[in-house]
Amino acid sequence: MTAYLDPRTGQTWPIEAPRWRGDAGQPLLLTELPGIGRDAIDPAAPGLWRYAAALPFRPRAPITMGEGRTPLVPRAWEGFEALFKCEWMMPTGSFKDRGASVMLSLLRDQGIAAVLEDSSGNGGAAIATYAAAGGMRARILVPDSTSPAKTVQSRAVGAEIQLTPGTRQDCADEALRQGNDPDSGFFYASHNWHPFFLQGTKTLAYELWEDLGFEVPDAVVIPCGAGSNVLGCDIGFGELLRAGIIPRLPRLYAAQPANCGPLVREFEGLPPEEPRPTIAEGTAIAQPIRPREVLGALRRSGGGGVLLEEAEIREAALGLARQGLYVEPTCAQAVAALGRLAADGRIRAGEKVVVVLTGTGLKATPRYAEFLGLGPV
Amino acid sequence: MTAYLDPRTGQTWPIEAPRWRGDAGQPLLLTELPGIGRDAIDPAAPGLWRYAAALPFRPRAPITMGEGRTPLVPRAWEGFEALFKCEWMMPTGSFKDRGASVMLSLLRDQGIAAVLEDSSGNGGAAIATYAAAGGMRARILVPDSTSPAKTVQSRAVGAEIQLTPGTRQDCADEALRQGNDPDSGFFYASHNWHPFFLQGTKTLAYELWEDLGFEVPDAVVIPCGAGSNVLGCDIGFGELLRAGIIPRLPRLYAAQPANCGPLVREFEGLPPEEPRPTIAEGTAIAQPIRPREVLGALRRSGGGGVLLEEAEIREAALGLARQGLYVEPTCAQAVAALGRLAADGRIRAGEKVVVVLTGTGLKATPRYAEFLGLGPV
Repeated sequence: MTAYLDPRTGQTWPIEAPRWRGDAGQPLLLTELPGIGRDAIDPAAPGLWRYAAALPFRPRAPITMGEGRTPLVPRAWEGFEALFKCEWMMPTGSFKDRGASVMLSLLRDQGIAAVLEDSSGNGGAAIATYAAAGGMRARILVPDSTSPAKTVQSRAVGAEIQLTPGTRQDCADEALRQGNDPDSGFFYASHNWHPFFLQGTKTLAYELWEDLGFEVPDAVVIPCGAGSNVLGCDIGFGELLRAGIIPRLPRLYAAQPANCGPLVREFEGLPPEEPRPTIAEGTAIAQPIRPREVLGALRRSGGGGVLLEEAEIREAALGLARQGLYVEPTCAQAVAALGRLAADGRIRAGEKVVVVLTGTGLKATPRYAEFLGLGPV
Repeated sequence: MTAYLDPRTGQTWPIEAPRWRGDAGQPLLLTELPGIGRDAIDPAAPGLWRYAAALPFRPRAPITMGEGRTPLVPRAWEGFEALFKCEWMMPTGSFKDRGASVMLSLLRDQGIAAVLEDSSGNGGAAIATYAAAGGMRARILVPDSTSPAKTVQSRAVGAEIQLTPGTRQDCADEALRQGNDPDSGFFYASHNWHPFFLQGTKTLAYELWEDLGFEVPDAVVIPCGAGSNVLGCDIGFGELLRAGIIPRLPRLYAAQPANCGPLVREFEGLPPEEPRPTIAEGTAIAQPIRPREVLGALRRSGGGGVLLEEAEIREAALGLARQGLYVEPTCAQAVAALGRLAADGRIRAGEKVVVVLTGTGLKATPRYAEFLGLGPV
């Protein structure tokens, strides 16, 4: 039987009771699942729900808007032929819909009716929207300095936006406090904390395997903040490997901004550095909660990391747009990383390499206006 | 052999030479195509290109980013169970990608390397983006009063934005002038004018037929400006009917804003009215170029039209968002129309009704901020 797992101590908790962290406040994963072969895929189910048999349990009614089954588009980048996984073609415009759909479907099945989240970005929008789709209440905590434009999407779908005094960290602390308070009336359904979220992002691995005719790519290049796509790929491909369905793991490469790249710095043995602002906002996570697991995933796969400079990220965003792929600068860094990996020989011509594009450029209009010298819009 | 057709006179022109209108300046369609059955669907092709056999000719290399194959999501609206076709989950965030992908693929095959378009909305963004994806130059004409925010997406993908003095009509006139000038160096690839665009939107009909297990819906409710989705459905379902593959046409219902609804007014025998501003911006087309064909499509199908008040459109947008479907107010009017059609008995419980949701709410942030009373964002 699947259980919540503290991966550092091996301690487990039964999966039936809703839980988002361990008794000592530590982040959890789930115990290993067996994985599914192609016969267990349900071709009649919408989007990623075709892989529902791979989940820890099947919710009676998935909360779905057809998320997943995103296009895999071939493009040359600096002479290297890669495959771009277009994860922004989702209900809310980002890959976070995979995690939100699965997590909230499972939580609703456990009796949760009101959820708490702290994010003014893609995570918050996805949780707010899937809560709405599932008839659940949602409260989203954001710093009181957040511009109203950033929360319009979450407000429109009916979430309660709670402006929290202080910094982003103060906001996270307040979310933890409310999440730990049984009287708050809200369950902390954090896209960063809850292990069910990674059960959603792991469907990316199953989908890439199916996209490629049930073969594994040689490498996957992933924009990395807290690492939910790195961990999702690690869990999904790991299940396929242990089940003997694929012969090896693809090499996972994490792309982080040089201005805020704690995971890649640690992977490469570089000293910690004070984070600086970056245009790759979505991955500017100074203190990711599962560093050991993300680094373990990169090592296990034989992959690694790349730190990208601001100018490289900007050029990659514009270069990609000029090929018709209009994405958030946050994820354009994975494209810049592809160029670096090809240049330094870590990926080689002829290898099957997937670059994950996580969010739509439509959420970054002011940033593109700045890149284009249009002034404030 | 397929040819360009003036539907009013029956005159034809050979399809080989690029052409966007007749010799007398009139809009063209194509001669009737035979339609395709399920055996002709190519399951290995990306997105809507699975229906490539239904096109007038097959381009050597489609310009594709996986557009099409959008989710069909069941939702109740005012007690009526309908199916919502989520056409905004596309590369540029709107249904226009169907038309742009097909039209530019066919034009590139005809030797066109530079295209002209006049639209600061979804049409312009789609043409600009697919031109970029296909390595074609694009020039987009917009009135010089257009706010920079509206053209960021098109500029980012590398289109030349030409600010044109005067009104939207002056801008269209200038586009016609340049499009008719052999020395301009640009071919007028207008999403409103070119009949190839409708060959892209007709894939919606094929896709709905396949979505429903190769059955035809009873009715399709469509946001209608110039009518490219109404005409696309008419052409696609018409092909399936003539081929004997489906037993009847679905009833097509066009939703237009009461403030600017010339097609529905004419359909209902109402006198013309001076257009007023509407929040359904994308359908605010005072002089659609194929009125007779759109009205013919509505009549042939046994459908009709609905005029929606501004308050209804706003409430539908917010009501839909609160079910997790965050779309442009322009297309929320189709949802309001569903409610009216169910209330007045034009659609009945138990009927299979599709509502087409054409654009993402992410392009309407200022409008939603206004709905929510957030002030300018």
